[in-house]
Amino acid sequence: ELREKLVALNPADVASALGEVGKDKLLLVFRLLPKDFAAAVFTYLDPDLHRLLAESITDQEINDLINRLFVDDAVDFLEELPANMVTGILAHADPTKRAAINAALRYPDNSAGGLMTIEFIYLFEAMTAAEALAHIRKRGMDRETIYTCYVTSPQRVLTGAVSLRRILLSKDDALIRDLMTTPVIAVHTHDDQEDVAQKFREYDLIAMPVIDNEQRIVGIITIDDIIDVIVAENTEDIEKMAALHPSESEYLKTGVWRLARNRIFWLLFMMISATLTGAVISHYQELLQTVVILAAFIPMLMDTGGNCGAQASTLIIRGMAVGEIELSNWLKVVWKEFRVGILVSLVLASVNLLRIMLFVKDSNPRVDLVVTLTLFITIVFAKLIGCLLPMFAKRLRFDPALMASPMLTTIVDAFALMIYFSLAGLFLGL
Amino acid sequence: ELREKLVALNPADVASALGEVGKDKLLLVFRLLPKDFAAAVFTYLDPDLHRLLAESITDQEINDLINRLFVDDAVDFLEELPANMVTGILAHADPTKRAAINAALRYPDNSAGGLMTIEFIYLFEAMTAAEALAHIRKRGMDRETIYTCYVTSPQRVLTGAVSLRRILLSKDDALIRDLMTTPVIAVHTHDDQEDVAQKFREYDLIAMPVIDNEQRIVGIITIDDIIDVIVAENTEDIEKMAALHPSESEYLKTGVWRLARNRIFWLLFMMISATLTGAVISHYQELLQTVVILAAFIPMLMDTGGNCGAQASTLIIRGMAVGEIELSNWLKVVWKEFRVGILVSLVLASVNLLRIMLFVKDSNPRVDLVVTLTLFITIVFAKLIGCLLPMFAKRLRFDPALMASPMLTTIVDAFALMIYFSLAGLFLGL
Ligand SMILES: [Mg+2]
Ligand SMILES: [Mg+2]
Ligand SMILES: [Mg+2]
Ligand SMILES: [Mg+2]
Ligand SMILES: [Mg+2]
Ligand SMILES: [Mg+2]
Ligand SMILES: [Mg+2]
Ligand SMILES: [Mg+2]
Ligand SMILES: [Mg+2]
Ligand SMILES: [Mg+2]
Ligand SMILES: [Mg+2]
Ligand SMILES: [Mg+2]
Ligand SMILES: [Mg+2]
Repeated sequence: ELREKLVALNPADVASALGEVGKDKLLLVFRLLPKDFAAAVFTYLDPDLHRLLAESITDQEINDLINRLFVDDAVDFLEELPANMVTGILAHADPTKRAAINAALRYPDNSAGGLMTIEFIYLFEAMTAAEALAHIRKRGMDRETIYTCYVTSPQRVLTGAVSLRRILLSKDDALIRDLMTTPVIAVHTHDDQEDVAQKFREYDLIAMPVIDNEQRIVGIITIDDIIDVIVAENTEDIEKMAALHPSESEYLKTGVWRLARNRIFWLLFMMISATLTGAVISHYQELLQTVVILAAFIPMLMDTGGNCGAQASTLIIRGMAVGEIELSNWLKVVWKEFRVGILVSLVLASVNLLRIMLFVKDSNPRVDLVVTLTLFITIVFAKLIGCLLPMFAKRLRFDPALMASPMLTTIVDAFALMIYFSLAGLFLGL
Repeated sequence: ELREKLVALNPADVASALGEVGKDKLLLVFRLLPKDFAAAVFTYLDPDLHRLLAESITDQEINDLINRLFVDDAVDFLEELPANMVTGILAHADPTKRAAINAALRYPDNSAGGLMTIEFIYLFEAMTAAEALAHIRKRGMDRETIYTCYVTSPQRVLTGAVSLRRILLSKDDALIRDLMTTPVIAVHTHDDQEDVAQKFREYDLIAMPVIDNEQRIVGIITIDDIIDVIVAENTEDIEKMAALHPSESEYLKTGVWRLARNRIFWLLFMMISATLTGAVISHYQELLQTVVILAAFIPMLMDTGGNCGAQASTLIIRGMAVGEIELSNWLKVVWKEFRVGILVSLVLASVNLLRIMLFVKDSNPRVDLVVTLTLFITIVFAKLIGCLLPMFAKRLRFDPALMASPMLTTIVDAFALMIYFSLAGLFLGL
């Protein structure tokens, strides 16, 4: 009776319920489920439960499970397991599946080949719509999607794509050759998953074929997996921009040691490089001792410079990530940031001057002048560096997201203080 | 002949080509296209070209276009136009379409109601699979999707959903009542688009019904539009985290004035609040004058504190955005960050001490002690504030992303310097 109730639910809901019960119950309930339903539930389980189940169920059960999973899900699952376990499991899988899984496992995890699955519908150009429909009805049961079908030559070279909708709405004797669209929007096995996602977005597709170097179709990627790619890539960028080593595991399920390890590298890097900025201050010790009030403006200058730079770099990094800004636009970008920098610095410098004049008693006019000038120069500089650094990184094939925070802060801070004290030396004459 | 060539292309490609040609050619080519194809191309055009076309084509043409667009795309288009133009255009639209568009225009732009379209397939429980299929073949032509169909009572109350795949793979005399899944995963008209996207992600759907307060189905949302929502929401979060006023227009197409305006508010806010940190320094002027070397560590302390805080807040904000961290986890999070803070600060403080001892000649051991202690306390504090602020913001129904940068910097900076100078006063005894 529990079984009946569970099967009536959505597999995703069953999976999230299984996430709440204990280890023993998990196994008990999982075994209760009809095998196809269990496989569907399995794909929605968290990685830690995958491992737990893999270690608890029998070889026969695991074999059964693998054969029911779509290849992409099987691959995701196997990637979480230790290598020797994988070999053991695959030894029992059925041959076609094993070959496909082995092929997919060899592609980088973040490539099209690592995302694809092989359960799709092939059609041939000479089929009629009625024949194609009959074929789909016969084969559709165990396909990941039947809504887009792919037309191939006998050598499996991809020649066209046709939607089920088109087939269904056409006359029975229409030829697939005339219904298919061509050239097909496709990706290569080695294409980066970010580019694949970009293509899905551009063409509003729900599935995309993956082809090899001989233009043969070797798999398809479906939109539900692309959504996960988009979210994961965004998380990665956000983490990099906050000077974190990106991690794919959930925060709450990541141990303290690992969390600390993901943070320490950039923190050390930035701490050490901040001593550079400190060195600028040491260098001007005497000046600072004479006009100690200079120190009071250091936080404001550093923060404003850093924030201005971060704003620019963030816009450029994001613009490049979503494909709105190309490297070839660099001159346009720099010119834009230069003008924005001028505008912003005019406003900020004026407000700051006004604030000092209105609220600070016995302020030193020369110091005020130095602060105002430094603010102005620093902001324009920060905007320019903020847009140049990520474009430069991309040019050198580094990840631009890394340039948002770690590098930028150091450069802008050191620059700001150098300008500040040079100007101070000049105007407060030592 | 150009026409033939264009029609053979993908509408998205034609749209991007039209983005490159001049204004006059745009109009010329657009008029050349068959009307249905032109409507498809239109949905892929940039907003500025939408406006340009709307102002150039005749009332008759615009009317034709509106009637061919899906409601959601028509709404997106009309939202870009001035209100008086919209009234004029809608006056000529066909009545059902006009009613649907007017309804959708009344929903907030970022709600389910603002995303939905009305071109979907209704089925009834008493239909057989064969009847349903015949119905789909008759009506499918002008539907946004036919791959998921919705089952309603005669009063349009949503009672189930059934995929075309299920219908196609079932026996001809199977009843829709037995094929449909229930309860249906659905959203309400007023649900936030972020929650809608989350649901798509959770259940791997390609379409989702939108229901009103009486459980009647009023529209559907399709996955291609949800992808755009996910990307836009991520951009918004990234911009907020970099202290930018979020903007929906592309960087390269945004004017300098507007770019500056989007940046100025938070910059002013942070500049003014940084004077608070400056005030801490002013307060300790005498101490600083006596031990001027203290100033050299200010950048390192401020930067490290800020970076540590940003790492924590970023992980928490992102975790909440993708649904991995709930407010109810707050104690777990705080405890985790506390331990991570201790680990990280132990490493950083030791490395810093080592650096000073190895590379700085005649360093003052008391100053070194003060710096080390401050570093330790600041890092733990920054990690705690970094995780608490976004959760607190969410509790108060503010956007957590706003708490990543602007608030955090000020609080951590001021705290770091207060600790620093207090400890300095204590250990360097004035
Ligand atoms: Mg994979
Ligand atoms: Mg990547
Ligand atoms: Mg799109
Ligand atoms: Mg999947
Ligand atoms: Mg999949
Ligand atoms: Mg990336
Ligand atoms: Mg809208
Ligand atoms: Mg929102
Ligand atoms: Mg999913
Ligand atoms: Mg759309
Ligand atoms: Mg749409
Ligand atoms: Mg948001
Ligand atoms: Mg800072």
